[in-house]
Amino acid sequence: MIYFDNSATTKPYPEVLETFRHVSEQYYANPSSIHRFGSDAERLLLQSKKQAGQLLGVEPDEVVFTSGGTEGNNLAIKGIALQHQNRGKHVITTQVEHPSVLEACKSIEALGFEITYLPVDGEGRISVDSVQNAIREDTILISVMHVNNELGTIQPIDEIAKVANQYPKLYFHVDYVQGLGKVTLNMRQSGIDLCTMSSHKIHGLKGTGMLYIQKGTSLFPLLHGGSQEASYRAGTENLAGIVSMVKALRMVLEKQKNKFDHLVGLRDKLRSELSQLPNVYLNSPESGAPHILNFSVPGFKPEVVIHALGERGIFISTKSACSSKQEDESAILNACGLSRELSASALRISLSYENSKEEVNNCVSALQEVLTELSGVMG
Amino acid sequence: MIYFDNSATTKPYPEVLETFRHVSEQYYANPSSIHRFGSDAERLLLQSKKQAGQLLGVEPDEVVFTSGGTEGNNLAIKGIALQHQNRGKHVITTQVEHPSVLEACKSIEALGFEITYLPVDGEGRISVDSVQNAIREDTILISVMHVNNELGTIQPIDEIAKVANQYPKLYFHVDYVQGLGKVTLNMRQSGIDLCTMSSHKIHGLKGTGMLYIQKGTSLFPLLHGGSQEASYRAGTENLAGIVSMVKALRMVLEKQKNKFDHLVGLRDKLRSELSQLPNVYLNSPESGAPHILNFSVPGFKPEVVIHALGERGIFISTKSACSSKQEDESAILNACGLSRELSASALRISLSYENSKEEVNNCVSALQEVLTELSGVMG
Repeated sequence: MIYFDNSATTKPYPEVLETFRHVSEQYYANPSSIHRFGSDAERLLLQSKKQAGQLLGVEPDEVVFTSGGTEGNNLAIKGIALQHQNRGKHVITTQVEHPSVLEACKSIEALGFEITYLPVDGEGRISVDSVQNAIREDTILISVMHVNNELGTIQPIDEIAKVANQYPKLYFHVDYVQGLGKVTLNMRQSGIDLCTMSSHKIHGLKGTGMLYIQKGTSLFPLLHGGSQEASYRAGTENLAGIVSMVKALRMVLEKQKNKFDHLVGLRDKLRSELSQLPNVYLNSPESGAPHILNFSVPGFKPEVVIHALGERGIFISTKSACSSKQEDESAILNACGLSRELSASALRISLSYENSKEEVNNCVSALQEVLTELSGVMG
Repeated sequence: MIYFDNSATTKPYPEVLETFRHVSEQYYANPSSIHRFGSDAERLLLQSKKQAGQLLGVEPDEVVFTSGGTEGNNLAIKGIALQHQNRGKHVITTQVEHPSVLEACKSIEALGFEITYLPVDGEGRISVDSVQNAIREDTILISVMHVNNELGTIQPIDEIAKVANQYPKLYFHVDYVQGLGKVTLNMRQSGIDLCTMSSHKIHGLKGTGMLYIQKGTSLFPLLHGGSQEASYRAGTENLAGIVSMVKALRMVLEKQKNKFDHLVGLRDKLRSELSQLPNVYLNSPESGAPHILNFSVPGFKPEVVIHALGERGIFISTKSACSSKQEDESAILNACGLSRELSASALRISLSYENSKEEVNNCVSALQEVLTELSGVMG
């Protein structure tokens, strides 16, 4: 099997799974229970939070553990909107966000909020000026993703943060789900207020995530109840998931340090080989994240190509998994101004540090075969 | 170790953990990915949903997988409130709900809702008449727990449902977290609209839960994004957690069938032995759930007793874990009209099918020792 759909989800590291098992067996007490067994679980929780803070360069109590990226994005957007609506009801985001950001924004339109969806250039990038120009007296939140999930485009987060930081009443949220472990983002130095991360995109387990919430930020919680996570997020902590996620984070940051060039090498090899195939158009910018390569093959239905590759044990994807069953055209490529021909025939290869050159070679050969075969059928 | 804090959380069944490991390793694809590997994961998800539906006696698409009980309660309450606020802004609940219900209700007061918190009798039970009398023209939701988490008191859910069902515009939500696998509730026959369940209370894993949503019920989701869970709850599904939870559900329902008398036997033995100890007052009703026994030892600080038992490897609790660090008095026992002396000295033993008579004997002996020792210290 060649698994090239790492932006949809990743294979859990064996060490991560082993940690999950160990914690589930040995530390299953409720961290809120006041007996010794509960205190042991609580201590492990605090250690995990401390380690997460160290790895991310933030304070331990600025890390809130969530159930995943979708929860993080929803908590950031709805949490700021509902809590600070008296200050204003205007939110700025982009046309190329993940559905969990776009739909969260749409949902608060029903509650009386107005959203500005910033346009992007041909590579999916927003301009810092457009952010500056969109800011109004009643703007309370800017939400921009770091790495685009379909294209790998990297947004100018630091520059946007500089703009946002000129307005002390404005919160800046970053969806960092695709970037974590691949493209460094220093949330503290940048002056980001909220930053969403997900475990299963970095070889952790599904059902866990983190939201960085800069100290002093008040939110309307999605989950009210016990005082877990400093009351930002009630509910018995998924301790085994949390400890595993922090382990995955440590491991992936290690790989980012040691295997980054390997990943870039794979992507560049893919770029150069795919660009030589007839009728293949590369959509991802050269300056994009090292793990995502988006390309179109006009005239070929992406799902047909994906199934043909799947029969050969090679798994790539169309657009984001979260919108893959909805329409046949990519809204993101559409926003980039690509023709329908290109935006309706897009494919995405997304790599991990675990992939090899051999897999890249085999994938390119298989794709070539598949396209030839399908051309025959179609011809 | 004697673990008697099963209402706070339970030890995962080994089979459940093994299922988690297997699914995480073999079915890690994103169920929304359209390649074969993703379809395999999706098929497993649908099978799990079907099995959950069969076990609960409801339709598969009436089961929505969540991150746990707190999310289920928040989704039910806020989801109905925000979606149906045009019909009315009045909600009825009780004074003895879990914090995730009480705080969710309080949170929507800030959004203009009015909440009626029904009082309870000396055993923590609400009267069906009080529900009937509290219903107004603008009532849109009634939320009542099934089994009380501190006392084990069983609310008259079927009778309340009969009342609620006379008002077609009124939704009835039940927090079934403590009852599942111990006290049967037929959500379909009762005519309940929404019903919260949690995995880690039935020897499943933390971070997973289920919300039964009767077909045709519309909610404002907490998590917007992809169209997972019929758009009731966006976010990549925690498939390993889901499959494990359904396994735990199957196993615990099996135990409920085969080991119910064993559990009742343990509880009754505890009741009879504790009632013979001097200065021990039983708070749980005799007609309560078979796994929860609440008692007070006036004059003794519960945390001191708990720590002394903990040193002997016996783990019991005060009130619910979710409120255990907040105040020294139980709000629930308070609502029952118990004196401060009793409500500030309450202890809870919560059993599982895995506990034994020997453990009950050892716990009672240890408690007797501890109380004697502490009396000496205090005397």
